[in-house]
Order: sequence, then C-alpha cells, then structure tokens
Amino acid sequence: MIASVASLAPERSPSVKTVSLLGATGSIGASTIDLIKRERGRYQVVAVTANRNAKALAQIAIELGASYAAVAEPDAYGALKAALSGSGIEAGGGSAAVVEAAQRPAEWVMAAITGSASLLPTLAAAERGATVAIANKECLVCAGSLFMRRANACRAKVLPVDSEHNAVFQALGAGHRDDVRRIVLTASGGPFRTWSKEQIRRATPEQALRHPNWTMGPKVTIDSATLMNKGLEIIEAHHLFGLAPSQIDVIVHAQSIVHSLVEYLDGSMVAQLGPADMRVPIAHCLAWPRRLDVPVMQLDLAAAGTLTFEKPDYDRFPALALARRVLESGGGAPTVLNAANEVAVAKFIDRELGFAGIVALVEATLEAADRAGAMNEPQSVADALAVDHTARSLARALLPEIAAKAS
Amino acid sequence: MIASVASLAPERSPSVKTVSLLGATGSIGASTIDLIKRERGRYQVVAVTANRNAKALAQIAIELGASYAAVAEPDAYGALKAALSGSGIEAGGGSAAVVEAAQRPAEWVMAAITGSASLLPTLAAAERGATVAIANKECLVCAGSLFMRRANACRAKVLPVDSEHNAVFQALGAGHRDDVRRIVLTASGGPFRTWSKEQIRRATPEQALRHPNWTMGPKVTIDSATLMNKGLEIIEAHHLFGLAPSQIDVIVHAQSIVHSLVEYLDGSMVAQLGPADMRVPIAHCLAWPRRLDVPVMQLDLAAAGTLTFEKPDYDRFPALALARRVLESGGGAPTVLNAANEVAVAKFIDRELGFAGIVALVEATLEAADRAGAMNEPQSVADALAVDHTARSLARALLPEIAAKAS
Repeated sequence: MIASVASLAPERSPSVKTVSLLGATGSIGASTIDLIKRERGRYQVVAVTANRNAKALAQIAIELGASYAAVAEPDAYGALKAALSGSGIEAGGGSAAVVEAAQRPAEWVMAAITGSASLLPTLAAAERGATVAIANKECLVCAGSLFMRRANACRAKVLPVDSEHNAVFQALGAGHRDDVRRIVLTASGGPFRTWSKEQIRRATPEQALRHPNWTMGPKVTIDSATLMNKGLEIIEAHHLFGLAPSQIDVIVHAQSIVHSLVEYLDGSMVAQLGPADMRVPIAHCLAWPRRLDVPVMQLDLAAAGTLTFEKPDYDRFPALALARRVLESGGGAPTVLNAANEVAVAKFIDRELGFAGIVALVEATLEAADRAGAMNEPQSVADALAVDHTARSLARALLPEIAAKAS
Repeated sequence: MIASVASLAPERSPSVKTVSLLGATGSIGASTIDLIKRERGRYQVVAVTANRNAKALAQIAIELGASYAAVAEPDAYGALKAALSGSGIEAGGGSAAVVEAAQRPAEWVMAAITGSASLLPTLAAAERGATVAIANKECLVCAGSLFMRRANACRAKVLPVDSEHNAVFQALGAGHRDDVRRIVLTASGGPFRTWSKEQIRRATPEQALRHPNWTMGPKVTIDSATLMNKGLEIIEAHHLFGLAPSQIDVIVHAQSIVHSLVEYLDGSMVAQLGPADMRVPIAHCLAWPRRLDVPVMQLDLAAAGTLTFEKPDYDRFPALALARRVLESGGGAPTVLNAANEVAVAKFIDRELGFAGIVALVEATLEAADRAGAMNEPQSVADALAVDHTARSLARALLPEIAAKAS
C-alpha cells in the first residue's frame, strides 16, 4: 500500500511543489516563470505547453528543467523535438499532447492558454483534482457551470489569477462564504472613461488600445475600452464564487489600485489592493494558501495619493448591461456573447467595424443565436465548442449589415 | 459527569451566545446593546456593569434580561439595588463586583470600561478563557505583554473593537500570520491635518474637539488631534498582532473609510473599509467568526468618490514619533506615556496647558520616570497601576514648568 501511494507522486522533498504551465510563452506564463525562477528550490516543473512557438517553449523547458513540453500546433512539433534533442525532455505535438501535459501529475497547474483551446486541457487538469490557477476566461464564460461542477466533483481547487477575481478570492478569506452580501468588481473605466457617447462611437483602434493602467494584449485592451471585459468578469465571478448576478456589482476606479471588494453582512468591505503587476495575483496563486516573498513593486499608497470611485455609466458602456442580461438568461448565451465579441473585436481592430459596432454585433448575434435555437446550456466541452462555432459563423454573417448600420 | 458539565453552563439553545457587557452605559456599550436588541434570540445577556450610572444600568439590565448588574462606585450600589428591586436581577457594587461580573460564565465579553479601571475586570474575563472584545486601550497599552500572555495561556480569544485594529484583524483572515510583511494603520489626521506647525501650537480645546469624521469622547478626540491616538494604536497593534514596531506603519487617510491595511509578502494589501459607524466593528466581534446581518449604513464608495492618502508629518505631529520611541524602549514606558498623556489632555481641556504642551508634558514625564527608575515592565496589574500612578504624579508636578515653557 505504501509503495503504491509513493509511486503516484514524483520523488521530491515535501516542501517542493510540482507545477505545470499551460500557455508558458504568453505574458502570464512569463510572469509565472519569473516567480518560479526566483524560488528555484520550491518548485519542480513537470510540463510546459505553448501554441506554436517551439523555440521559446524549448528554452523555457530546458531552463526550468521540465520533463515534458508540448505545442498545440502539430506543425511545430518537429521544431520542438529538434530544439529539445539531447535535453532528456520529452516533446509532444497537437491538442491531445497539450491535454496530456495537463494530465501529467503536477499538484499545481497554471491554465493560461487563451481562447477556446483552453477548455479541454484546463478541464483535464481540474478532473485529476489539481490546484488550477485559472488565467483564461473561456472555461468560466463559455462552460462555467460545467467546469465548476466537474472541478468541485473532482476536488480540484480553482484559484483565480485575474486581478479582480484574485482580489475577491483574497477578500473572501476574511469571512464565511454565507456571510457575503455582495462583491464589487473594480473597473478602470478604460481609455474612454471620460469621453462622451459620441466621441466613443467614433473611437479608433489606436485610441482604444491605449489602456491607462495595464499593459495587456489587444483583445483584452479593447474589451477594457468597451467594458465588455468587466461584463465577462461578472459572468466569471458568478461561476467562481457561486454568487447570484444581483450580488455582483461593478464600480469604476480609474487608478486600478483597489482590485475588487467583498461586502459582508455587517457592512464591512474587505478589499485587496496592489500595484498593477500581474505577478502579485500569480504569486498569490502559486504559493496559496501561503505567500511568496517576492520583491515586486510595493504599493505606495501615499505616492498614489488619490483613489477615485464612480458608478459605471451603462448608457455610454452598453456592454456591461448586455453581459448582465446574458448572465441572467444563462444557457449558452454567455458562450455566444464571448464568441461574438471575439469576432467583433477582431473586426474592429481590422477596421471593418466601428467601436459602437462591437456591442451592436454581439447583440445581433445573440438575437440570431436565440432564433436559431443555439442557446442551450453546454453539457460538455464539445457542446460549448459547437455553440462557440455557431456564434462565430452568425457574427461573421451579420458583420456587413451591422458595420453599415453602426458606422 | 453530564450533570456537572450542564451545571456550569446556563440552560440555553445551542445557537444562543451568552454575553456580558463591561461598561454598558458608554457609547460602545450603547452600540453593542443596539446590535443585541436587533438579534434578541441570538444573545443571552449574563452581566452588565457601569461606573456609577445606576439608573441607566438598571434600565439596560432589565431591558436585556441580564442576571447580574454591577456598578464600580460603591456609592451607587444603593441606587442600583433599589432600581433593580423586584426584577430578580442581582445587584453588585464596588470594583470587586465588576470583576465578578467579568467572571460570570459568559462566552463573549465586551470590555468597554475606560481607563485603568478596565485592567482587572478585562483580565478576569480573559483568564477564564472567554472571547473578549476589547474596546479599551489601557489593557494593551499599559499591560500589553502581561495581558496577551495571560490571554494566550488561558486560550482566551481577543477581538479588537477599535476600527483600525478590527480592520487589521479582518484583513489577517486573508493570509497566514507568518506571511505578513507589515500593517498600515490609517489616521484621519484629525482637525489639524492641514494646519501649520505654528497654527497647531496655538490650537484651542474647541478647535481640537472638532473631529472631522467620528463622534467620540473628548479624550480620544484630542488624541486624534495630536495623533497620540495613532501612537497608542501602534503600541496596541504590537501586542495584539505580535508584530515588530518596524512592521507597523501609519498613513493619513482623511476620509476614514479605509480603516487599515495588511501587506503580505507577495505585495498584496488587504484592507477593511466601512462607514464611520462603530456598530460595524462591534458587530464583527459580536458574531465572530460569522457575521451579523445588520442594516447599518452601507458604504457607498461611488458617493464617497475620492479617498486620499498621505505620509504622516512627524514634525507637526511629534506624538507619533514619541509613541514609536516609547514602544521601542518598552518596559513601563508605554504605561508612563499613556498616564502622562491622560493628565496632559485633561489639563489642555481645562486650559492649564497649550496644545503643544501636551506632547511636551508627556516627554518630560517619560524623562522624569526614567530618572526615577519607574520604567520597569509591569509584571502584574498592580505593577501597571503603580507605574500609572507614579507617572500621573510626575506629570502633575511637571505641569507648571511645561505649561510656562510651551505657552
């Protein structure tokens, strides 16, 4: 009996945590690697994955001493295998290889694959009961009920990496879940916080890509400008924390220092604050339930000086109200919202759609999906991917009409 | 065996908490009573005490259905006994009766007696392992090491009521004690936050008594104007949370909405925010580790709009630096600081001492006590009371000289 238990776990010192990084070459991956390298002795890397950047992945795998590396793109497998030759690190290629990376026995998994490709590997990590630091929104937005149900059944711990949800998770430590009155997600308000409705309507991709506080990829930066990002976060928070939509509020906080708050029944609000550095929430997830001593930028509140808070403007930022309606209607609607929004943002960046057209296209797609009967609650990842696929086709088909109307 | 265990505890439903209120007629007592009356079925009141207001205490005892009421002033015993006649409530008088009230078997005790009279009864409650909500500063400032050592040895739970320390206590729930980098106590800055050093020097009692955010007694309001209150809170925090003086920072936050913060090793700061209503921290202590659902004023961050933070000015507010030095020198110095400050504030209110004279008198008393060899660490409540007594005599003797110099 003892021997069989021992054979399940890799041989290691009891204070060493085994970790895998899904999406190791992205910005969340880079921040996670930065933290792991600062604490060499405490983490043993099992598997790392990337989409197609074989060279960068091989370098990471060798540097961290991983035992397995996988690229999602089958075409990149040859380059990965060549780059790892002689290293003793096993190479894998294709989506099944990425799922296998998630299944390798690491106690802790960073799920930072972007897009719907994240669904299967993230679920695979959760289904073997790992602690999953979740940095992609698709698992929660497109398959939230399904994902959380499976994760809970398999006793996986789901730790949110996103700064707002991580803040809520931290603040929930100050009380009992049943004593939460509501949570308040903070929103920077994006680059158009003070713009008029008419100015926003005419906003260009260059203007929308100038986020005041965070350096992020173009998709999420545009989502911050429409406030769709906050809408998606409301949906994520609903699934992560098991809260009713009415218990999830949003407040505009231009400085992005208070990352979110939890209000308890007695009127206490507990908040997490920190610098705009993703290493803070990643470090929290990595060391959880303890803390990593990292010399990240310390927050100097006196230097920050002033924190402001204002009600979100649902008129200038209709994405927020739309996401709320979608969450309340449930079923496949959040999956459609997410897919249509991805198409719309890409088309906005390509100048095929105006800024106001983003929400208009999402709204039109939701109506079309409803009419097409494509709004059922996904019962499997395959279901979710099918809804996602249908929504993308519908959005693309609706594009010319909406682009013309909204211009 | 079963019979003898049952006889120790009053007969009650398992969801009912037995509580006693030491200092029931003060403002903390009134807020606690307000909360208990909202949740009639959940609390059974064992004992209530007051200094000398027999009429008010009898009314409280009858209204709450207490079984014992005690006044500290022996002279007031007759009036209490008369007011309680026929109620079936036992009456007591004198300091021993107040200690007895603390010893009666209530699971939870509000320790809200002001001044050094709080030491013995609060310690008595802690020594029988009760959960003690501590609202007086004397136990922690004058006998902090002693009090916390005894409380820990007797497995008493010490819950801080003071809004700043309660905020820290709540924020500590978000992590492990060993992972705390520092705590940051917020200070409103008092009525003289923006005044020049010369203006502050000439401040009158009327000006000093105008606190911008909280309605409190005159002593603590003056302490907020000198920032001595924050200095005393640094000392309290050191004992309550077992932190080194260097781990306790102060930041000026004029709006008194963020009540304090805890910084963890990973750069996360966790804060508690709430309205300036003492019922919020009292409710937290009363229901701990759960929360009471109380319709207290909800904090509306958007209505508050702006929160500001600035470094405290140690030059204009020398009390802060003095309290830090006193904490670092340890021994009986905090007891001397507290006693001398009480004398100085009373003399300032009586116009026998200028505003700048408050800190000057405290400083001179500390020097005199040091020369007199009266600065040893109190080993008992009697020791602490003796140091307190000596310090008061020294302060009174030094008054004419300091008043003349500082005018």
